[in-house]
Amino acid sequence: MMMQRIPDAVISCLKENQRFLILLHQKPDGDAIGSAIAMGKGLKSLGKEVDYFIEVPVEEKLQFFNEVKTFNQKLEESYDVVIILDCSTLAYCYLPATMPVYKTLIVIDHHKSNRGYGDLNFLEITGATAELVFRLVKALEVSFDEEMADAVFTAISTDTGSFQFSNVTSETHLILSQLYEIKNNYSALSKKLHHEKNIDQMKMTGAAIKSLEILDEMPIAFMILDYDTIMRYGGLINISDDIANLGQNTIGVAMTALLKEVKPSEYRVSLRARYPFDIHEIAVKYGGGGHERAAGFNYSGDTATIKQELMEMYQSQREKDDV
Amino acid sequence: MMMQRIPDAVISCLKENQRFLILLHQKPDGDAIGSAIAMGKGLKSLGKEVDYFIEVPVEEKLQFFNEVKTFNQKLEESYDVVIILDCSTLAYCYLPATMPVYKTLIVIDHHKSNRGYGDLNFLEITGATAELVFRLVKALEVSFDEEMADAVFTAISTDTGSFQFSNVTSETHLILSQLYEIKNNYSALSKKLHHEKNIDQMKMTGAAIKSLEILDEMPIAFMILDYDTIMRYGGLINISDDIANLGQNTIGVAMTALLKEVKPSEYRVSLRARYPFDIHEIAVKYGGGGHERAAGFNYSGDTATIKQELMEMYQSQREKDDV
Repeated sequence: MMMQRIPDAVISCLKENQRFLILLHQKPDGDAIGSAIAMGKGLKSLGKEVDYFIEVPVEEKLQFFNEVKTFNQKLEESYDVVIILDCSTLAYCYLPATMPVYKTLIVIDHHKSNRGYGDLNFLEITGATAELVFRLVKALEVSFDEEMADAVFTAISTDTGSFQFSNVTSETHLILSQLYEIKNNYSALSKKLHHEKNIDQMKMTGAAIKSLEILDEMPIAFMILDYDTIMRYGGLINISDDIANLGQNTIGVAMTALLKEVKPSEYRVSLRARYPFDIHEIAVKYGGGGHERAAGFNYSGDTATIKQELMEMYQSQREKDDV
Repeated sequence: MMMQRIPDAVISCLKENQRFLILLHQKPDGDAIGSAIAMGKGLKSLGKEVDYFIEVPVEEKLQFFNEVKTFNQKLEESYDVVIILDCSTLAYCYLPATMPVYKTLIVIDHHKSNRGYGDLNFLEITGATAELVFRLVKALEVSFDEEMADAVFTAISTDTGSFQFSNVTSETHLILSQLYEIKNNYSALSKKLHHEKNIDQMKMTGAAIKSLEILDEMPIAFMILDYDTIMRYGGLINISDDIANLGQNTIGVAMTALLKEVKPSEYRVSLRARYPFDIHEIAVKYGGGGHERAAGFNYSGDTATIKQELMEMYQSQREKDDV
């Protein structure tokens, strides 16, 4: 998709108003937090008043931003403008119990499904919402400081898997090129965002690999983190997002199941598949949901049943496999 | 470092000559192979004759390039121009037993230590040698095909740890931006380069994490892959480069040792440290070498001795730790 023009009305609205409230989606990720910080500091540098109402605590790896300390310090009864960032629907937004009065709602987002629920909308399918925020703050003729550059870097780097996902565009790298003119080294930040784990997260990863088995000579990876293991390494919170991907990253694997025993004999199952395989149907059959390539469900019972389901699903789909 | 001008003599030499031989360093990595392919195909597209003399087999993850099949097909007695890529010294270059006669040697490299041993040199400290090759081939007015774009992407992505290392510059991302105009999706390639492991490599990683211990409440990570484990998972070749980094990626760790038991009771030791710690001295003491933050040595004896060395080194240096 070609880069679009920033709507003039959005720029005017930001320039002409004084009191702003920034909102994000629930469980804000690197793109949401990074977008909020770049937007908020950009407006503050123009002498505007900015409040943030954001679900906390933010992820540990994002807590180093000084601007995080200014989140949720106050909430007025009214604002000139409410800005919602990185949030595809209003229902998914983390909102105050009593919504303040406001004149204009601006929605800035990169999700394809966003239908434009703001009074003003700046929507474009990009690697990260922060790409839109970067362009907008630049258009306001704000000079970026290093924290704002770190915020935009964090947002793009996390939402693109370190510039690897298919959402990266030529424009993404043009923005990165400009970030390196503000600050010339993001290596420590990258390590923090993509590699660092606490010792329990590391051990949980090791335990998941230890459990990894390939089912009956089929390209199906099966992993279990049992209840004792999860408890030993500090609970579900230490199962990092990348664990389910370990199965898929094993050369030759087409489908992966990761079973997390959240209570004795109760499992949360994460499924992954690569094109053209589709594990969505299994998840739906067991009352879960998701997409063709990533889905999940809750399960109580014999884990052998799940193995059997996966093997049958694979066999019925293998003729579609063009790899 | 600012981007420099490509020496005119290099461009003229490539334009005016017809028969080229491309050489790389020993054990060619992604940057070497990617640079060779982009340079070679670029020259071929101008109607030039290009031979490659390259140490094979190339790494498994780089074998998908069709151009690799044209490596080492023939070696003439003479060439107009020999091009050496990504090779800081001639001694480190992988050379034919009998060097062909040539008129001009061109050296293209991004290593700081390169003193310019060619008749013509294009040297600049960049993220990857392929950045220089990209600019040079562009200057020859060659149109890049998708394989050439993949080659440059592979080179930069591997040499910068997916755009994370401190060698990345604004210029690196400007080049990436141009690569996305040639081909708009590098996600499958990125997964291949950075995430995929065969099942033995995956299990070896799991075994290394299982062995990971933190020494005596000091921020020192210690890992052993014993001889039986190494043999069970297909030998040393399946110990991927990132295993020693697992210790360093554990939050709080300042120094890491990975011991690989290459024969019963004979170890190859890899050491890592983060600033300001320096493990080079330990490696030198045991007859090895390396740098302040990454060093190694061979060792036969009691592994407890190595633990003791690390703990003493840490204690003597801890006052320098500013973290």
